Amino acid sequence: MQFGRVVGTVWATQKDAKLENLKFLLVEELDARNESRDAFTVAIDAVGAGPGETVLFATGSAARQTIQTDGRPADAVIMAIVDSWDLDGDVVFRKDAEGD
Amino acid sequence: MQFGRVVGTVWATQKDAKLENLKFLLVEELDARNESRDAFTVAIDAVGAGPGETVLFATGSAARQTIQTDGRPADAVIMAIVDSWDLDGDVVFRKDAEGD
Amino acid sequence: MQFGRVVGTVWATQKDAKLENLKFLLVEELDARNESRDAFTVAIDAVGAGPGETVLFATGSAARQTIQTDGRPADAVIMAIVDSWDLDGDVVFRKDAEGD
Amino acid sequence: MQFGRVVGTVWATQKDAKLENLKFLLVEELDARNESRDAFTVAIDAVGAGPGETVLFATGSAARQTIQTDGRPADAVIMAIVDSWDLDGDVVFRKDAEGD
Amino acid sequence: MQFGRVVGTVWATQKDAKLENLKFLLVEELDARNESRDAFTVAIDAVGAGPGETVLFATGSAARQTIQTDGRPADAVIMAIVDSWDLDGDVVFRKDAEGD
Repeated sequence: MQFGRVVGTVWATQKDAKLENLKFLLVEELDARNESRDAFTVAIDAVGAGPGETVLFATGSAARQTIQTDGRPADAVIMAIVDSWDLDGDVVFRKDAEGD
Repeated sequence: MQFGRVVGTVWATQKDAKLENLKFLLVEELDARNESRDAFTVAIDAVGAGPGETVLFATGSAARQTIQTDGRPADAVIMAIVDSWDLDGDVVFRKDAEGD
Repeated sequence: MQFGRVVGTVWATQKDAKLENLKFLLVEELDARNESRDAFTVAIDAVGAGPGETVLFATGSAARQTIQTDGRPADAVIMAIVDSWDLDGDVVFRKDAEGD
Repeated sequence: MQFGRVVGTVWATQKDAKLENLKFLLVEELDARNESRDAFTVAIDAVGAGPGETVLFATGSAARQTIQTDGRPADAVIMAIVDSWDLDGDVVFRKDAEGD
Repeated sequence: MQFGRVVGTVWATQKDAKLENLKFLLVEELDARNESRDAFTVAIDAVGAGPGETVLFATGSAARQTIQTDGRPADAVIMAIVDSWDLDGDVVFRKDAEGD
């Protein structure tokens, strides 16, 4: 899994029938130091992530293992909203600390 | 999933039997700012995408989850035609705005 | 899928039993403008491709969806011989035009 | 599989239900000479790996083949703690030698 | 599949139960001209490959299609020992020629 930040929404009316009622979010990829990797992925939201939230997303066939995405033609899914992480003993990111 | 623009068609008469009646489209990959990444993928069309249209494509085993591509030897599929997307609050792409 | 050109054959007598009677071809990867990407893949031939032919190959689990490769430990397969493709309205490659 | 070192933990309360009771570890990727590749992956722990330990992690659908991760939306798993490895006849890493 | 050379062994006592009795080999990736790509993969040995041998390895879910690796959390497998290959009509590698 990789870290990401929800930076947008993608709208598509004309799509494979299996994709109805799924939300496509635009995710900016983050490195382990919480900096942008200047790379983006469109992922299905499986956890109710909102704009600006820091998330974990999984790619490949893992993207079809959540309850919402089972059997859907999706190759990326947001499967967790991140509370915090640490790197070599230092807290890199903490949800509450953002926006304070 | 990644953004792409349909820029061509690929013709192949001699192919695995499971690929009959599928359309191969040449897709130029786009970044989140709607600029070309100068990379291309050949994808099966699952949504009736036409030349010049901006689409979402999925790669890997996800490419075999649409109704048209189930069980086919394909590793990329166009599974949605994009209406619009936004990035950090700004609309980056809107279907109607193109070609006006 | 990506474009490729068959540039060689790989011989291996000692291999997993499921790989018996499959042909390993060396494929040079081509970009959408029919130029070499200076990258190579060894792919199973599922369509009777010959040396010098321009093909489409699929990677990942798609490589096990052709009749010949079902259930085999292969991660790349040639699943089509390309007749032609176009890019932004121009024909980039046409099979008959080669070697004329 | 690739070599990695456990450098942190990721906390996420809000996640897909299938991910309950799994531990997300932050893994720094190592090359074959035991040097950092300055790339990181968040992987599910399937072997009880602790901070600082050198591990093997697998990505893609392999990440769902351990007893703990079967059917979970995960694309990376720590499936072994490394005792040692050699490269061209020289021991590159040995668990006991670290921290002495 | 890609070419590789077996350059080491990886030892791990603490691992997922499904990985018992499998051999982890360190593989140096080779390009189509038989030169090192300075990239390495740890792969399960499915063919009894020895140190210094030139092999083919497959990655992704293909790594679980050999008899030895079915259902195991592995993402790379050595599935063939290479006898020879040619590129544009020239023999690049021949097993007997090595070490003469």
